[in-house]
Amino acid sequence: MSDKGYILKEADLHPLSIGAALLGTGGGGNPYIGFLRAREVFRQGATVPVIPLEVLTQDDWVGEVGGIGAPVVSAEKFEQGDEGTRALAAVESELGIEVAAMISGEIGGANAMEPVITAAKLGIGIVDGDGMGRAFPEVQMCTFFIYGGGVAPAAIADEKGNVVVYKHVIDMFWLERMARHTTVDMGATAMLALPPMRGDFVQKTAVPATVTQAVHIGRTVLKARKARKNVVETVVEETGAKLFFTGKITDIRRHLVGGFARGEAILSGLGDWAGSEAKIAIQNENLVLWVDGVPVLMVPDLIVNLELDTGEPLTTEVLRYGQRLAVIGLPAHDLLKTEKALEIIGPKAFGYPDLTYNPLEGKAK
Amino acid sequence: MSDKGYILKEADLHPLSIGAALLGTGGGGNPYIGFLRAREVFRQGATVPVIPLEVLTQDDWVGEVGGIGAPVVSAEKFEQGDEGTRALAAVESELGIEVAAMISGEIGGANAMEPVITAAKLGIGIVDGDGMGRAFPEVQMCTFFIYGGGVAPAAIADEKGNVVVYKHVIDMFWLERMARHTTVDMGATAMLALPPMRGDFVQKTAVPATVTQAVHIGRTVLKARKARKNVVETVVEETGAKLFFTGKITDIRRHLVGGFARGEAILSGLGDWAGSEAKIAIQNENLVLWVDGVPVLMVPDLIVNLELDTGEPLTTEVLRYGQRLAVIGLPAHDLLKTEKALEIIGPKAFGYPDLTYNPLEGKAK
Repeated sequence: MSDKGYILKEADLHPLSIGAALLGTGGGGNPYIGFLRAREVFRQGATVPVIPLEVLTQDDWVGEVGGIGAPVVSAEKFEQGDEGTRALAAVESELGIEVAAMISGEIGGANAMEPVITAAKLGIGIVDGDGMGRAFPEVQMCTFFIYGGGVAPAAIADEKGNVVVYKHVIDMFWLERMARHTTVDMGATAMLALPPMRGDFVQKTAVPATVTQAVHIGRTVLKARKARKNVVETVVEETGAKLFFTGKITDIRRHLVGGFARGEAILSGLGDWAGSEAKIAIQNENLVLWVDGVPVLMVPDLIVNLELDTGEPLTTEVLRYGQRLAVIGLPAHDLLKTEKALEIIGPKAFGYPDLTYNPLEGKAK
Repeated sequence: MSDKGYILKEADLHPLSIGAALLGTGGGGNPYIGFLRAREVFRQGATVPVIPLEVLTQDDWVGEVGGIGAPVVSAEKFEQGDEGTRALAAVESELGIEVAAMISGEIGGANAMEPVITAAKLGIGIVDGDGMGRAFPEVQMCTFFIYGGGVAPAAIADEKGNVVVYKHVIDMFWLERMARHTTVDMGATAMLALPPMRGDFVQKTAVPATVTQAVHIGRTVLKARKARKNVVETVVEETGAKLFFTGKITDIRRHLVGGFARGEAILSGLGDWAGSEAKIAIQNENLVLWVDGVPVLMVPDLIVNLELDTGEPLTTEVLRYGQRLAVIGLPAHDLLKTEKALEIIGPKAFGYPDLTYNPLEGKAK
């Protein structure tokens, strides 16, 4: 790998975590705890190069680790610390390789931080990109798998010391199914290492520059707060996001099903949307936004709830009755909108047979 | 290993499967399908040495494979054929060893046949002994683990091609928990390879000579049938079993819970027990026999249901209303009756806090 790119510093971690929370579209787990854990590692002297996609070569192995499980649990059950490196070591040993860099499978939420922590511990870099450009509730909902990435070996590790290796797996749905249930056994959260990938494959299939995008979003939020500007407005002005609804939560339903947080939120309109009602469907992440019964935003586009007054991005597990929200949308990357991708991450794949994906572009006020 | 022992021949497989079914105490899965699979392999020219415990040395690695799952499912969902060798290969590769012989973790039921099939395919021998001397519903209920055997690496393989390796596992209960749920994912049956063991450890901890015992029981049953003698009486005369009840099933309840077949059977007495009522508690295997409310037989002793007229050993999944049974008991081996063992496989461990283990010896008519 060349020396292009830049160095991720301790001061970038907080913006990264804020941007990651926003890109999490309500899910992906709260990155704040990951930020604190990453900061600990950086304070012990780590520096992490951020490597642009274009400098990756076939000779580079890229490792991928991420948390798997229910966000509502990971807010209370913390990592022991080296789950990521133990899971990664298991897949490296299975293949007889060492990875040269880490990548996030999911920039949205806590999984933005995990590869940073693992890279910092191992003294290697992270790739500026990820496999979703957002968060999705299942492992296979990732460009690396949509575009033909390997399924095994993968490994999961828990905080107790258990390491399970998925040595041969017939397809990604089987890995998701088996790893998800073992995660439930492990206490609903664990760290998953996916099969290391060749650099040239990552170059073609990763959603590009999403680490940089997350840091930029986070800095925008922090800058607006510092200047006492309206955060929602600033984010819409400076990050390419569009405003789709403002309202107050009048009903929120949530239940844990097989390791997922499912539910829906009902919002009563405020400001420009006074008199309107919105509904947001949730499976860990925000999946679909209806305004007055009309679906106006849907997966794979990003649906993000910001607290109306503070601009704080809200994960679905902290939504509660009476909260005032701005619902903003960000367009998904083109890699998520191909026919092949929509089969896995389009609205129909999430159980909405009547919804045909209608891209965000040009729809917002 | 020395050349002591004997060769298991095709003609021994049917008796072995009948004896294994009887030692299965109602569970362990029906060995008949395993018998047919083993016979196929033997007809392709395999011979399998049966190796007595006393000739094992520290230099010998002994492999252990067995089916895991709900017997009621394994009667309909057959193995693809090489699950056992694929699971074993995964643990061998993890340790960088090759096993010299196979052993059954559980002589009772289908798992009597699996190591025979794997040994026949690999051209190695089987050890004359096992880890239970019967069947038990959970992986950790085995002398190898009760007396300090390793927990990892273990591996499970399914008929679809999935292989999952338990590389680091903190204890046997975690292996049981994770492997059991992944087995449910895999369709409720799979093949499990447990950590290979050193020969000297197996020598000290295995229940001895149980392959020979199973073949002897099976031959006794077949001989009695051929001579048109009463099979139940012959088994009681020639195998050390004792008769505890004869009766007709008046009620049978069964349900699948997390991969286990649980339930209970109520019997109305016949012959010497006319006017009495018996109850048998089931968790895959027969756990406790009560006669007129008094617990007369309990784990770890063996409680076996034979069809009254034919002497056929009945697995719990084929019990049905109106069936006429002889309930016989066989004493558990001393290795199963130590304080340490009873903590894992005594009646209290199976959810009967009021029952203190009361050994079979001297209790029957």
